[in-house]
Amino acid sequence: MNLLEKKFLKLGAENAPGQEVRQNTNEIRIRGEKISGTPVDFSHGDVDAFEPIPGSLDVFIEGVHLGGKQAYTEYRGSKIIREDVARKLENFTGTTIDAEQNLIITPGTQGALFLAMGSTIVRGDKVAIVVPDYFANHKLVEYFDGEVVPIQMDYFKTTAGAGLDLTQLEDAFKAGVKLFLFSNPNNPTGVIYSSVEIKGIAKLAQQYGVTVIADELYSRQIFDGRTYTHLCAQNFLDPENVITIMGPSKTESLSGYRLGVAFGSAKIIDRMEKLQAIVSLRAGGYSQAVMKSWFAEPEGWMTKRIAQHQAIRNDLIAKLKDADGFKVRATEAGSYLFPRIQGLDVSILEFTKILRLQADVIVTPGTEFGPQFTDSFRINFSQDHKAAVAAIDRVIKVVELYRK
Amino acid sequence: MNLLEKKFLKLGAENAPGQEVRQNTNEIRIRGEKISGTPVDFSHGDVDAFEPIPGSLDVFIEGVHLGGKQAYTEYRGSKIIREDVARKLENFTGTTIDAEQNLIITPGTQGALFLAMGSTIVRGDKVAIVVPDYFANHKLVEYFDGEVVPIQMDYFKTTAGAGLDLTQLEDAFKAGVKLFLFSNPNNPTGVIYSSVEIKGIAKLAQQYGVTVIADELYSRQIFDGRTYTHLCAQNFLDPENVITIMGPSKTESLSGYRLGVAFGSAKIIDRMEKLQAIVSLRAGGYSQAVMKSWFAEPEGWMTKRIAQHQAIRNDLIAKLKDADGFKVRATEAGSYLFPRIQGLDVSILEFTKILRLQADVIVTPGTEFGPQFTDSFRINFSQDHKAAVAAIDRVIKVVELYRK
Repeated sequence: MNLLEKKFLKLGAENAPGQEVRQNTNEIRIRGEKISGTPVDFSHGDVDAFEPIPGSLDVFIEGVHLGGKQAYTEYRGSKIIREDVARKLENFTGTTIDAEQNLIITPGTQGALFLAMGSTIVRGDKVAIVVPDYFANHKLVEYFDGEVVPIQMDYFKTTAGAGLDLTQLEDAFKAGVKLFLFSNPNNPTGVIYSSVEIKGIAKLAQQYGVTVIADELYSRQIFDGRTYTHLCAQNFLDPENVITIMGPSKTESLSGYRLGVAFGSAKIIDRMEKLQAIVSLRAGGYSQAVMKSWFAEPEGWMTKRIAQHQAIRNDLIAKLKDADGFKVRATEAGSYLFPRIQGLDVSILEFTKILRLQADVIVTPGTEFGPQFTDSFRINFSQDHKAAVAAIDRVIKVVELYRK
Repeated sequence: MNLLEKKFLKLGAENAPGQEVRQNTNEIRIRGEKISGTPVDFSHGDVDAFEPIPGSLDVFIEGVHLGGKQAYTEYRGSKIIREDVARKLENFTGTTIDAEQNLIITPGTQGALFLAMGSTIVRGDKVAIVVPDYFANHKLVEYFDGEVVPIQMDYFKTTAGAGLDLTQLEDAFKAGVKLFLFSNPNNPTGVIYSSVEIKGIAKLAQQYGVTVIADELYSRQIFDGRTYTHLCAQNFLDPENVITIMGPSKTESLSGYRLGVAFGSAKIIDRMEKLQAIVSLRAGGYSQAVMKSWFAEPEGWMTKRIAQHQAIRNDLIAKLKDADGFKVRATEAGSYLFPRIQGLDVSILEFTKILRLQADVIVTPGTEFGPQFTDSFRINFSQDHKAAVAAIDRVIKVVELYRK
């Protein structure tokens, strides 16, 4: 196998969310009858159940009517839109963001992640990645020929924070890690890093000169009135060593427009723009206009959306806690749950295929988030409330059929 | 300077089209008065002068109303849309395209280029690049740590083809080149490769097992009823070694939607999808719907658009041939002209800045397309006809002021 083949073997996407239709399921053997119900695709949020921000299409159409000015922006995004977004993110995070220097609009937060990592590491660099975390993180490191240094997060051990092992993080930093990438709230568990954890990360990053990319994609959807701490607001940390990533694809349901934003270090943002110039030129010009509706939602819209998601979470957690064989920590922010199943006698990959074929429910296997999660799966519960609850009932039934 | 800094030094984007507003112009000294006129940005086409395909926004809106199905497609793009595009491109190119295996929808043709190259080379691989050619090509090779092997194209030497040096190409292939990338019609000169040249490329690629990426972005806009030969239609060439790139951003003015397509080799398309999964997930879901309007333009629309561009070309060529100090070959396809200026006594970078400051005309310096083009500049004449002609008059006046 040559270098190119090896590289792409590590990039396998067939179990990634949304790719299930391309899977081979010939080997799968079903026990018992089909369990019928409304199909639910828990691999991502349902933007039909939770619709995009009202008026977002109108803002897009206005963008199209602006014509060439909106179609051809600077690679880092339209200046007017960057200024608007910078002001809104300054308010949200409590930091200073110069729209000219410190912010780039990207094609989705995936685009921001790719550009940010591609602008901070070269081959051989060590990158600390939380386990579990967003499935693309380790793939990105491998694509850039970096070396993944896993940092454990024992999310079942505590409820006062994410459970990050700060000692292990310091050891990794001491051993020469160049970049630390983590999502907060954590994907796939939906837990929030405590203020103590964030300050701990910031202190270590400052001490060892490590660059940090904080993926805060779901940071607007906080449950139970919890406190959320932004890493970029820790003023003892050199702002040139931090990139924060956000976007309107999740809570705001604007994923179809492919919009993300990265802000922070002027030096890194500058490189990200150069890289964007050869990767995809710019975030779709007309789509950029849709950023106007972000953080400008109608009065009460966001509060209601959060309450609706919290209610779905409550019902799903209650079901899973009542059922045999599940262990789950309640989501604190965002729309993910990451239940552990005890005593399954098929592999987690087989289980997810069975679930899809037998019960019309799509979930993402835990192994996408770290090789040891052979007994866990992720769901995104941003779904029609009733359909989600009924689908969890079917998941519980399927688990009963395939336990030892 | 560390490896990362070196890498990004090569990716300089400050003279790239559209980035002019970020340039430093403190050092520029203007001779004489400002030459006034309607500002013209020749760095890219003007989608206000040549509007997007009629109905394209309506198709986008229909896509939004389709909801989640359209927002979250497979990474390679919606199956229904791939099938439609594959059928249309089969007709256009005279090849066979299986929508499941041989085609991916990307965020613009830039996205397709990045993914295609990232899926065919690893560090150290030799890549043959035509000189002159699209400015991002050599940047891409450098970004992927490949080695550029320049192949000369003497576009002033012949009018029967592009003027590619096939002997040099064979020498490069013999010396171990893994990938050959070229645009046809050529960007920046607007010349078409002859049937003899295309067959020559295909023969050599087959003989030496070289992968070829053919960028056919402007291949629908052919002037003077010329013949255009698709590399992918040369049936003695192994189709698994060819990727063709197209998109509706140029003639069709759909650039604001960021849409491109790559088709050909199933193995490479498969890798491109894996790479897209970590680069930007997918082409914007709603934007993908706009592909329906491509190759489905109203009766006569394309014919008229081509005639309008041919008329602008004729006027600009006449002006430049009449003026002192210019050498130019007439565009055969697409909207680019690449005139050479004789006897300029400022550098081409200074000249482009002067032109912008003194005459409100933006052009792209020749050095973006190859280091030796220190006396050439590129214009995209897809502009308001009158404004373009008046702007060329201003270019001619500025050249008079800055000649030896």
